[in-house]
Amino acid sequence: MTLLRSIAEIRVHVASARRLGLTIGLVPTMGALHEGHGALIRRAREETGFVVVTIFVNPTQFDRPEDLQKYPRDLDADVAFCERLGVDAVFAPEAGEMYPGDLHQKMPLASVEVAGVSSRLEGEFRPGHFRGVATVVAKLFNIVGADRAYFGEKDAQQLAVIQTMVADLNFSLTIVPVPTVREPDGLAMSSRNERLTPEQRRAAPALYQALCEGERLIRSGTRSAVQIKQIVTAQLSRNPMFRVQYLEVVDPGTFAPVTQIAGAVRFMAAIWLGEVRLIDNILVLLP
Amino acid sequence: MTLLRSIAEIRVHVASARRLGLTIGLVPTMGALHEGHGALIRRAREETGFVVVTIFVNPTQFDRPEDLQKYPRDLDADVAFCERLGVDAVFAPEAGEMYPGDLHQKMPLASVEVAGVSSRLEGEFRPGHFRGVATVVAKLFNIVGADRAYFGEKDAQQLAVIQTMVADLNFSLTIVPVPTVREPDGLAMSSRNERLTPEQRRAAPALYQALCEGERLIRSGTRSAVQIKQIVTAQLSRNPMFRVQYLEVVDPGTFAPVTQIAGAVRFMAAIWLGEVRLIDNILVLLP
Repeated sequence: MTLLRSIAEIRVHVASARRLGLTIGLVPTMGALHEGHGALIRRAREETGFVVVTIFVNPTQFDRPEDLQKYPRDLDADVAFCERLGVDAVFAPEAGEMYPGDLHQKMPLASVEVAGVSSRLEGEFRPGHFRGVATVVAKLFNIVGADRAYFGEKDAQQLAVIQTMVADLNFSLTIVPVPTVREPDGLAMSSRNERLTPEQRRAAPALYQALCEGERLIRSGTRSAVQIKQIVTAQLSRNPMFRVQYLEVVDPGTFAPVTQIAGAVRFMAAIWLGEVRLIDNILVLLP
Repeated sequence: MTLLRSIAEIRVHVASARRLGLTIGLVPTMGALHEGHGALIRRAREETGFVVVTIFVNPTQFDRPEDLQKYPRDLDADVAFCERLGVDAVFAPEAGEMYPGDLHQKMPLASVEVAGVSSRLEGEFRPGHFRGVATVVAKLFNIVGADRAYFGEKDAQQLAVIQTMVADLNFSLTIVPVPTVREPDGLAMSSRNERLTPEQRRAAPALYQALCEGERLIRSGTRSAVQIKQIVTAQLSRNPMFRVQYLEVVDPGTFAPVTQIAGAVRFMAAIWLGEVRLIDNILVLLP
């Protein structure tokens, strides 16, 4: 496995793999790798001949400077993790390599905006977040030139933003969604879980349990999204450690809120647990 | 030469050329081809092994519906023109192929915005124009996957928008600027020239003459942009057929207005001649 820090180097390595007739798989990450990333990498390893993992804590997608600053970073551990999973190349650029000439790491002049799906939920509570995500992902797609790119369903709205970008801008690669990986107690794996205190960590699975309660309500015939949100919010609020930021039943294509449930929906949540913001979601398919 | 109407087809043809080891040259056009386009195509023919000309009157870059409606279209003549110049493939999609599911041909959900250079001059007078241009050019880059793409300096600001997009989003192709081609009387070649009446056509070269007068003033020591603009505007205004929209001395990198000329500048102009809007520009390099 090779660790590459410059755009020129990763391009050379990918070009060599292409000349050997290998297909290229891309797993974009912000590092602090865990088994959620592991699932993306394993899937890429099964489906493509040359697997590139990118590790870049992208400053332009953080709406809060303290969140960027506190984001966990451990390149050595991440590189070892990738090596164990048979990754071919890790691309881990410095911020100045991705955003040259912009010492303040603000958005570059050219950026990708995805209207519609970007405006709600995460987009509403994290202004500029999805523009930062879409722009850095477009850059990584252009730098690596992959055939397939792997994204987790835990960030379902991000996945939809990227799928919209790929379709509308005609990127010639396939986006592969990979199901959320959970801890044995149901908590969705996330690099932010590291920042939870032991007490917060014990409480955290209530987020997933709340989503599952919403699913049970839908399956048992409740069709009013308002009613479901009320019941689930009440359940979460029993623990004063939780501050619910949003809890929403949305159309899984557009992420527009649904009031009366008539088909498949995605049940989305964002909560604060102390200083840590956690998101999770489940897809509910009606029979 | 092949005429292709679908994205899938052009991709297959380009992939075949790539397998033969050919480099790919792209000349994006809106059709109504003239010798200005001819210069782009000839340059691409000299420098690359497989030349693709795209012909697409992009609805999302027209700020005025009547301008889109009146834009000259003659695919048969354009195809014959390309054939004469040794083009390998013409990609001429219908609007529905480029913007599926959007019958009103508005901007797709995902779009590319280039801040800074897009906001001035053409960007100010044609709201949304450069977002439409950047987005369709990003789409064409992703569809064709060229090594080199050719753009005319007549649309100098468009060229700067695209160069910024390519740099900031890490498109892996080279942008080749090609000098403006002029009629013997100096009028910059443009598809819009076709729409001039014979009387307007006879008057039109005054636009280029005015820019040249500005250059003479700079070369003879005038350093105040205001003074130059006053003199040149007065010269153009002698003919009541002209309505000057803007006349500006700008930094050739950022397109920001320059007040005191100290180095290279671009002298930019947009005028109305009856119902036809003409633009032109010249680069003035101080010795």
